[in-house]
Amino acid sequence: MSMSQSPTQPTNRRKVTVEGPGGIRVPFTEVRLSDSPGADGPVPNQPVLLYDTSGPGSVPSTGLVPLRAPWIAARGDVEPYEGRPVARRDDGRAAVRRTGPDPAVFPPTTRRPLRATGKPVTQLAYARRGEVTPEMEFVAVREGVEASFVRDEVAAGRAILPANVNHPESEPMVIGSKFLVKVNANIGNSAVSSSIDEEVEKLTWATRWGADTVMDLSTGPDIHTTREWIVRNSPVPIGTVPIYQALEKVDGSPEELTWELYRDTLVEQAEQGVDYFTIHAGVLLRYVPMTAKRVTGIVSRGGSIMAAWCLAHHTENFLYTRFEEICEIMAAYDVAFSLGDGLRPGSIADANDEAQFAELRTLGELTEVAWRHDVQVMIEGPGHVPLDKIVENVTLQKEVCHEAPFYTLGPLTVDVAPGYDHITSAIGAAVIGMAGTAMLCYVTPKEHLGLPNRDDVKQGMIAYRIAAHAADLAKGHPGAQRWDDALSKARFEFRWEDQFDLAMDPETARAFHDETLPAEPAKTAHFCSMCGPKFCSMRISQDVREYAAAREVDLATAVEIGMKEKSTQFRESGSELYREPSSA
Amino acid sequence: MSMSQSPTQPTNRRKVTVEGPGGIRVPFTEVRLSDSPGADGPVPNQPVLLYDTSGPGSVPSTGLVPLRAPWIAARGDVEPYEGRPVARRDDGRAAVRRTGPDPAVFPPTTRRPLRATGKPVTQLAYARRGEVTPEMEFVAVREGVEASFVRDEVAAGRAILPANVNHPESEPMVIGSKFLVKVNANIGNSAVSSSIDEEVEKLTWATRWGADTVMDLSTGPDIHTTREWIVRNSPVPIGTVPIYQALEKVDGSPEELTWELYRDTLVEQAEQGVDYFTIHAGVLLRYVPMTAKRVTGIVSRGGSIMAAWCLAHHTENFLYTRFEEICEIMAAYDVAFSLGDGLRPGSIADANDEAQFAELRTLGELTEVAWRHDVQVMIEGPGHVPLDKIVENVTLQKEVCHEAPFYTLGPLTVDVAPGYDHITSAIGAAVIGMAGTAMLCYVTPKEHLGLPNRDDVKQGMIAYRIAAHAADLAKGHPGAQRWDDALSKARFEFRWEDQFDLAMDPETARAFHDETLPAEPAKTAHFCSMCGPKFCSMRISQDVREYAAAREVDLATAVEIGMKEKSTQFRESGSELYREPSSA
Repeated sequence: MSMSQSPTQPTNRRKVTVEGPGGIRVPFTEVRLSDSPGADGPVPNQPVLLYDTSGPGSVPSTGLVPLRAPWIAARGDVEPYEGRPVARRDDGRAAVRRTGPDPAVFPPTTRRPLRATGKPVTQLAYARRGEVTPEMEFVAVREGVEASFVRDEVAAGRAILPANVNHPESEPMVIGSKFLVKVNANIGNSAVSSSIDEEVEKLTWATRWGADTVMDLSTGPDIHTTREWIVRNSPVPIGTVPIYQALEKVDGSPEELTWELYRDTLVEQAEQGVDYFTIHAGVLLRYVPMTAKRVTGIVSRGGSIMAAWCLAHHTENFLYTRFEEICEIMAAYDVAFSLGDGLRPGSIADANDEAQFAELRTLGELTEVAWRHDVQVMIEGPGHVPLDKIVENVTLQKEVCHEAPFYTLGPLTVDVAPGYDHITSAIGAAVIGMAGTAMLCYVTPKEHLGLPNRDDVKQGMIAYRIAAHAADLAKGHPGAQRWDDALSKARFEFRWEDQFDLAMDPETARAFHDETLPAEPAKTAHFCSMCGPKFCSMRISQDVREYAAAREVDLATAVEIGMKEKSTQFRESGSELYREPSSA
Repeated sequence: MSMSQSPTQPTNRRKVTVEGPGGIRVPFTEVRLSDSPGADGPVPNQPVLLYDTSGPGSVPSTGLVPLRAPWIAARGDVEPYEGRPVARRDDGRAAVRRTGPDPAVFPPTTRRPLRATGKPVTQLAYARRGEVTPEMEFVAVREGVEASFVRDEVAAGRAILPANVNHPESEPMVIGSKFLVKVNANIGNSAVSSSIDEEVEKLTWATRWGADTVMDLSTGPDIHTTREWIVRNSPVPIGTVPIYQALEKVDGSPEELTWELYRDTLVEQAEQGVDYFTIHAGVLLRYVPMTAKRVTGIVSRGGSIMAAWCLAHHTENFLYTRFEEICEIMAAYDVAFSLGDGLRPGSIADANDEAQFAELRTLGELTEVAWRHDVQVMIEGPGHVPLDKIVENVTLQKEVCHEAPFYTLGPLTVDVAPGYDHITSAIGAAVIGMAGTAMLCYVTPKEHLGLPNRDDVKQGMIAYRIAAHAADLAKGHPGAQRWDDALSKARFEFRWEDQFDLAMDPETARAFHDETLPAEPAKTAHFCSMCGPKFCSMRISQDVREYAAAREVDLATAVEIGMKEKSTQFRESGSELYREPSSA
């Protein structure tokens, strides 16, 4: 691998690209470290490469460079076509009433969508044919594994590589239990707040803090145009819940939903480049009554919409009855399924109940149907689950869904801390990640209370990056611990600047340190503010180690042979134990 | 049980006392709830009682009322004595150099300390004799268990009830794996920051947010006087690490420490009323070399001090060699041991290593020694441990320490998120709590970076109350889920004010809600800001349930017999599905 670097930045963190075997260039964050002190002078530390989701930087007026366009074209299995005409209604009720989004600010895109000319154009289809795509090569470099391993996991259905042919701007990533645990961030406006600009900014902000995919859950005004700008500016796969837009088109009345309207919405979004669809096809008519005695009934929006539709028509869920037709659409664009858990528990009391697991079994059946169509599948999971019931979710999901990747919302492990649900759920997310969940849907501090703002998005992302990394460490993912070891070594050696640069959130780490010890020399001081200059355990411990090294005996030997004189020397040189920072 | 209430407060949360069988009055927070909507009119909801650690409110000038004084006196096994004269040196080096704390603000206490006249005066001694003390009765009401159960757990050493006879202000609490998981908050100044006032305020603040015990880890100026004011104002047991003060008395040079000086410090603090001492008696000379190859050596302050002492003198740790004498002191005041893990891992790389587990085995031996002296014991645990290695810690601790309560610092599950270690460690804390850890030592966002301020203390406490409650739920603690069920029911029924009042942090929950929907009517609205008025899953789900109830058939029956006409009715009454909030 060779490296090239972006223009120099003022810190020791910078974006680099690593070139893979096939000439694929993959972005990483490189953290350069200062030297360690050694008995014979400074000892250099290798730079640390961190997985980087931030992309080349959003360009709202034009969108990102279509990185994957040549790869898609080279396969020769798609062609551009006119595409579905965009209607005023696509932007929702508000757009119908008023003039819609300002065309000067948000010009209609003139891009012609791509679609398969024949066979499925999914990464699953390619993998099953034994092909290693450039997308798989990209992912292999990112994850530090062989490309053939990526291919085999995708072929087995144990991993998905969401990559709509109409979202060539995305940097490929993989979701599967044998890869790094991923994090999704939800954004999107609602009837009561947010603008297009704000949503694109949230997207960029979320990927800056490590979002591996982003779901646009908009339900408010300008829903089509908002999505267009999100997809065009997104370096990560975009997911949606198409039923939300479909409901907007029928003025919010579930009973007016039809298959034709929903189908049209799927095509609309597939043409825009959405990489995965949450589809609540497992909410069957007969499962709805199972929720009547719950403490919190049905809490999934999609689930409740479909339940209302089923009851109103006394007819089976059309997402279930039309599932094969849905598969055909998705195979023509490579949109992956995220099979929605419309009956997920919304409280501790409802966890792991009959309704939840009945739906999960149906999702397992649908997984097999999707796979027959070469469509990639992941399975959504809860929700609210007490710690002792989390592992059962993963075990059952693996069994009934044939190891398709699991994608869970948290779960929240207590119900009583609104305002802190990023924490109540990061606990559950770490545990469910360790048990094999492939992607975690973040929860922000505003969960249950309101729409997340910029800082909420960041807080949610950091809590979930922590949960995902805790799971990676617990699963022994190769290389995951290198980052921790580098930071801990820097901590032990009082390399403060390296600690900040290696931190998940360098700015916050630095700011917190500076609150207590703001002076610049404190950042090179061999102590920290908790103990002060004369009383620091790390310092004492380091001195103990140096004592052993300086005397060229290891401590075990020193103790064994009872070198009394050594201990006397140590005592006599006691002042060195606490030498002033400047002398070190 | 009967209830009496404090003067009415403006919210639906208020402090009440519940009278136990022995006339013991135990404080709780009562949350009164509004009615639920029902088919035949409003249905009342029972108030929820929450465990309350906040005490009667700090009175810095005089200290709290000595609640336990009559109970202690009634046992007739202690007597007041002159006590050790307080020296200028007790307040540390700074006090020696200057005049010490202002005596007008912090008058020297004239209280004469109590001490056993003969046999041990520990709760363990009483329990072993079959006595149910008022302290045990108090705890039984708090925990919702029988007093005899408390006694039996204490007698078996599986639980401790920290209750120094010189801290009569404390409200009894129990630490044991069969009781609610407890949380300790660390406060204390250091050479570089904080004043006495600030520390007392942090104490009050920490107990307000649920601290079950507080450790005063001061190492800075006025260490004796700070502790005096903390103990006098604390409704919860206070723990310390006496070696910190001992080190201050020898100007920060570990090699100058002596048994006599340390012994004097133990007596000094026992007379002040400290309820438990962290004592690093398991840091044996032969274990120190085991840390030399670690990434982060010895990170415990107490551990590194003792390691330095052992190496300097090439002599076994005096805390180990003098352990029986220490037991005698502690038995005379009922100070409990918190056997310190001086060799705990300070990084993921060092978790569960030879040094850590060697020390743990020694702590197990010492537990048996302490029990022979009727002294209560808990065992401290790590630190930094990846998720997959957490359970092993608890399993081994239970085995080698004969089920003495485990008290762990976190553990942190990743090293890479300085600034967010309340979250990295709340994850580990919840998991280790579920596995049987009895008390969790909180970690604040400032861990590794600086001293916690007021907000850091709150953030640390909330993260740990979440972890503890998650563990309580996972362990199926009787009654733990009542709180969650009450809040979830309120959430499902859009009783916003009840949700805020039941929240772990009502102010934050309310503030976050108001950010998106500040208007007062929004708090009674039957929707939330995430979905807006027409598009809310909880609302739809509730409507589905009401639909079934109104028609006096359960949904299962309706579906089974295929009542097509019912579904038509439902469809025709479609507008009701989305009736305006005011009509509900």
